Amino acid sequence: MGEAATENGVRKATSPEEEHPRKAFGWAARDASGVLSPFAFSRRNNGDKDVTIKILYCGLCHSDLHVVRNEWGRTAYPAVPGHEIVGTVTQVGRSVQRFEVGDRVAVGCMVSSCGSCHGCEQGLENHCPGLVFTYNSLDADGTMTYGGYSDMIVVDQHFVIRFPENMPSDRGAPLLCAGITVYAPMKHHGLDRPGKHLGVVGLGGLGHVAVRFGKAFGMKVTVISSSPGKEKEATERLGADAFLVSGDPGRMQAAMGSMDGIIDTVSVAHDITPLMFLLKPRGKLIMAGAPAKPLHLDAFSLILGEKSVAGTCAGGVKDTQEMIDFAAEHNIAADIELVSMDRVNEAMERLGKGDVRYRFVIDIGNTLTAA
Amino acid sequence: MGEAATENGVRKATSPEEEHPRKAFGWAARDASGVLSPFAFSRRNNGDKDVTIKILYCGLCHSDLHVVRNEWGRTAYPAVPGHEIVGTVTQVGRSVQRFEVGDRVAVGCMVSSCGSCHGCEQGLENHCPGLVFTYNSLDADGTMTYGGYSDMIVVDQHFVIRFPENMPSDRGAPLLCAGITVYAPMKHHGLDRPGKHLGVVGLGGLGHVAVRFGKAFGMKVTVISSSPGKEKEATERLGADAFLVSGDPGRMQAAMGSMDGIIDTVSVAHDITPLMFLLKPRGKLIMAGAPAKPLHLDAFSLILGEKSVAGTCAGGVKDTQEMIDFAAEHNIAADIELVSMDRVNEAMERLGKGDVRYRFVIDIGNTLTAA
Repeated sequence: MGEAATENGVRKATSPEEEHPRKAFGWAARDASGVLSPFAFSRRNNGDKDVTIKILYCGLCHSDLHVVRNEWGRTAYPAVPGHEIVGTVTQVGRSVQRFEVGDRVAVGCMVSSCGSCHGCEQGLENHCPGLVFTYNSLDADGTMTYGGYSDMIVVDQHFVIRFPENMPSDRGAPLLCAGITVYAPMKHHGLDRPGKHLGVVGLGGLGHVAVRFGKAFGMKVTVISSSPGKEKEATERLGADAFLVSGDPGRMQAAMGSMDGIIDTVSVAHDITPLMFLLKPRGKLIMAGAPAKPLHLDAFSLILGEKSVAGTCAGGVKDTQEMIDFAAEHNIAADIELVSMDRVNEAMERLGKGDVRYRFVIDIGNTLTAA
Repeated sequence: MGEAATENGVRKATSPEEEHPRKAFGWAARDASGVLSPFAFSRRNNGDKDVTIKILYCGLCHSDLHVVRNEWGRTAYPAVPGHEIVGTVTQVGRSVQRFEVGDRVAVGCMVSSCGSCHGCEQGLENHCPGLVFTYNSLDADGTMTYGGYSDMIVVDQHFVIRFPENMPSDRGAPLLCAGITVYAPMKHHGLDRPGKHLGVVGLGGLGHVAVRFGKAFGMKVTVISSSPGKEKEATERLGADAFLVSGDPGRMQAAMGSMDGIIDTVSVAHDITPLMFLLKPRGKLIMAGAPAKPLHLDAFSLILGEKSVAGTCAGGVKDTQEMIDFAAEHNIAADIELVSMDRVNEAMERLGKGDVRYRFVIDIGNTLTAA
């Protein structure tokens, strides 16, 4: 809820529908059941540096599920999730020169940052202490941000990504979070070179894109999964070089010390110690999923071989643009199931069970209609 | 126990006293009580590439305590600990050219490695899968290694460190493990430059040396400790720039996001999540202690700011030589309490309680005598 002007010293809350001048419409969760339903709210006017985007597609990220169910304990309801947004520019502010009405653009996890801290100066807005996430985040004006499960969004031009011509809008949408979340740490940790061996844990939205980036970088890629049934998918469809069932002690043992780095994309609590043993000395396990429960880690699995566990959190705007341009150049996009807005709750249920190959994308443009 | 030649197809175990030709004497723990007592054993003959060292001093490392009490579950008794060894060369093999009889030398955590793996080729013998630790480790000949709580040791010349002239034997001994364990990761992770801010958790054997290295590198150094009483020691005696009580939420909060890296030297289980919040984006928490129980780690503390937890395990021979030369050049040595061999159990008890400033060193040369 935003807050209206002070009246007799008492701040009066306004409704989401009234707190900004422009009418908007989307789907929101109202409580920790996580069930989404139609929701009328509002967006700010397009400022001088803003771009207004008519949303066409929005990917369904596991973070959306965590947030609507309040699994991270930080959700402000009503919550409109969605940070894998692709759409068309419908308005630009006076100072906007990089975008024109009609351009196809995208928005990822972030919509604002301070612009002057060490992170912002380095193009790592994702490190900014004043970072505003695309949804469920307190904006500078004191209102909460609402995400891409909605008809339109107003975003500072700095956080708007150009969408390459040959990138499909629907299959490209998941790259805005799933793509950058694996691409950025691969680049940062040197897991982007031929001859390196990458492990990818979990074959979901992030994992299947990580395999494709890994192969595009020329690496050997091994998929590590608890589901033996995913082997064919991993090696034949996605082009992984090898497949390892995490519950097979013999094959896990045989693979010990073989990987330069591992991207762990699993969003539920799991034991990371066996993964550490797959790493070469000084190898890195990159945590791209965000389990709600604490990780347990055997200190010896870190110390022997001087290994690291590293967190990653999306990427900066510059890296996101680079990622999507690289993906377009290498014909990398997500494998998706396109769903209509009214099937979003079913999709959420299935996502919770890992029953999607590999990312749901909501067909906002064609199916979101005011009730 | 070693094994004697096969007799009727049955291998006969030999006693530690008989398994090698040269008589040796030290103190060993016999069971998980960890109590040490006099122990007659044996050492191999000095081979062509070997150096025999009369031991003068041996530091008392927290690993010694973990091992004698079998806290890591891997102890073979009898166990002679000790891997912070300083002594005098008494014999060299035919192929040894770097050392002469009478030289003052040192031995750290390792006494052998394969010599041909990726780690060995890079001078990172501590990464070698065939690494043989100085004690409680299976040597190539099938016998267990015995450490420096003993009168002499026979070591492959590659693992013998030259001791700089102006480095005191007693105060220099702890550098062989405590010193290299903090120096090597500081160098590797770029925590060796003016302008950087280093946190040091725990003001014990490793911690107090880390403060000195940090200041010698020109960094800002903050000591983080659970004991408010150590502030004066930290800032006045050791020269730390600041002191932070880990149990003081206000000061911990104020220090959030201020450190480039933290070296955590605490060897008992503790919560590392609050330390993660002290780090700048992409900051690194280096685990130099080895708690027996698993670490608990909030995934968000890694992900927000893309931080890392890194293990470290001593250092290679080349880095160890560099470390001790650097220490000599900057007048860095450990603050020690010199104890006689017969007081070692009392010292172990006190070490277990953190009651030592900052390292016990056993005066082997003057006080180890055969019963």
